[in-house]
Amino acid sequence: MYIGLDIGGTNIKGVLTNRSGNILKFRKIPTKKKSDEIINSIIELIENLAISHSTSISNIKAIGIGSAGSIDKKSGIVIISPNIPAWRGYPLTAVIEKRTGIKVYLENDATAATVGEWWKGNGNKFRNWIMLTLGTGIGGGIVINNELYTGRSGNAMELCHTTINYKGPKCSCGNRGCLEMYASASAVVRFTKIELRKDKHISSSIHYRINKEKLSSKLVYEEAIKGDLLAQRVFHQVSTFLGIGIANIVNIFNPEAVILGGGLSRAHKLILPVVKDVVNDRALPGLKENIKYTISKNGYRLPALGAAKIAIDNLENRSISNRFS
Amino acid sequence: MYIGLDIGGTNIKGVLTNRSGNILKFRKIPTKKKSDEIINSIIELIENLAISHSTSISNIKAIGIGSAGSIDKKSGIVIISPNIPAWRGYPLTAVIEKRTGIKVYLENDATAATVGEWWKGNGNKFRNWIMLTLGTGIGGGIVINNELYTGRSGNAMELCHTTINYKGPKCSCGNRGCLEMYASASAVVRFTKIELRKDKHISSSIHYRINKEKLSSKLVYEEAIKGDLLAQRVFHQVSTFLGIGIANIVNIFNPEAVILGGGLSRAHKLILPVVKDVVNDRALPGLKENIKYTISKNGYRLPALGAAKIAIDNLENRSISNRFS
Repeated sequence: MYIGLDIGGTNIKGVLTNRSGNILKFRKIPTKKKSDEIINSIIELIENLAISHSTSISNIKAIGIGSAGSIDKKSGIVIISPNIPAWRGYPLTAVIEKRTGIKVYLENDATAATVGEWWKGNGNKFRNWIMLTLGTGIGGGIVINNELYTGRSGNAMELCHTTINYKGPKCSCGNRGCLEMYASASAVVRFTKIELRKDKHISSSIHYRINKEKLSSKLVYEEAIKGDLLAQRVFHQVSTFLGIGIANIVNIFNPEAVILGGGLSRAHKLILPVVKDVVNDRALPGLKENIKYTISKNGYRLPALGAAKIAIDNLENRSISNRFS
Repeated sequence: MYIGLDIGGTNIKGVLTNRSGNILKFRKIPTKKKSDEIINSIIELIENLAISHSTSISNIKAIGIGSAGSIDKKSGIVIISPNIPAWRGYPLTAVIEKRTGIKVYLENDATAATVGEWWKGNGNKFRNWIMLTLGTGIGGGIVINNELYTGRSGNAMELCHTTINYKGPKCSCGNRGCLEMYASASAVVRFTKIELRKDKHISSSIHYRINKEKLSSKLVYEEAIKGDLLAQRVFHQVSTFLGIGIANIVNIFNPEAVILGGGLSRAHKLILPVVKDVVNDRALPGLKENIKYTISKNGYRLPALGAAKIAIDNLENRSISNRFS
């Protein structure tokens, strides 16, 4: 058995799986702030996955971790993770190996999502496709001619930190006007706060809900679906920016398909029509036609499953960048 | 013998070459405005290349054309070329084949530049590298794991038309705030005009030169080198924007090397130090380190030579996306 972990800025998800990718158990926990708290909760999650399947940790052959941010695969270090500030040059692999005694493999979270989507999602329908994970940030992965491309040091497709407004606000990564600030779950929250301040007549139902609950992209989505105009305006803004980002990607990669995953992709009924319009307005003829948009099914479990697949392939000395066969 | 043509928004370049890539003749002509004028001048260029080498057109086995804009390789049609507005859905291959009786192959100009750089330039030193051609527009090509990536329909890497300022001015492609409007030879001219209007004391020498000559990026470059502060300011602006564009590319591709070609790359002594600073400021740790920047040698002839190589490979049924061996 194998464990795959998907460590994002908001949640950590874990799966227990067998070698053929059947998910035996799935667990989700919130991402803590402090480094030792995060590690403790990860260890607990690993133990929980094993125990709930009535098995012992010693039956786990390897752990694959997909972590947000830029990583050094070889040394197992998280170089910088803008959404988990506690980790900067953090030896994640070594720490988890020491605590569990299990071999750990580290990969970028969006790469893990891409591998998961390829293995057990819609990825194998296409030869050239882009994976976008819309979560706290935006992650990206790319499969070119049926091979995964991860760049020189394994950190390609940090689309979230590409500039779409060079004069824009400062991003946590140090850059300005990054796509992530305009088209992610955090962007939904950011734009909602701006709109709430402008809403002098307190006409939006969000004002009332946030008296009792924390403002989240999920809350805004629920209100948008119910007809709240402010919430709908926010989703229109975010979808427009996502369209600008995807138009850039289309002009760069000329892909067959774009697969959307991550928590925010559950709002695809609000997002996709706007995205398609913007891509059609902004991307070039010859590139923008016939792009297939797909929503990741089981999107919340596939990144962790992909991390497990990466561990399996590494353990068996198979390159994850080779096509599945 | 083979002919390769590089059709840009400002100039058309042609080479006559043998199968091993020795350039026998090179010619450059300005790009006319009207479609039939462009075609006539291309036919004249082809004849000229043959005659000046004391050979006949019937000895030319194939012609490769690298054309700006988005193209349909299979049908040989230029779909849209923002810098050559006369061509929109234009059957370039068929027209040239009819006039010359020679087999013609069409490719994107930046792809041709990449192939030229790979064949006879610095490309074969790297496995994962980006080619940027800084001309009237910006073209891009990418080699991933020693294979050329051109996308689903052959138009990948239209970096010029990626948005770096979503609120920016309208580009000829229909999009807004495209990189090309900020970091190309045309951008040098555009920013110089803005700066000249602000230069109330007529302190820049450019005011005097443009009484007799047309304002061009070359003219601005010459004045910058001589110490003209306005010209230097313009190059600093354009280099900053180019750095923003390259930081995006670094965050997307995590490449080993960036090779700069095209007319504007001759100004690399002004451009590169600024670009490196901006990339260092804006790209992510884990991706921005140890990137090799190289200037294309013979950059003005390699795109046309690459187009000839594409014709050779097509004629011999070799895929250009395979590595050279």
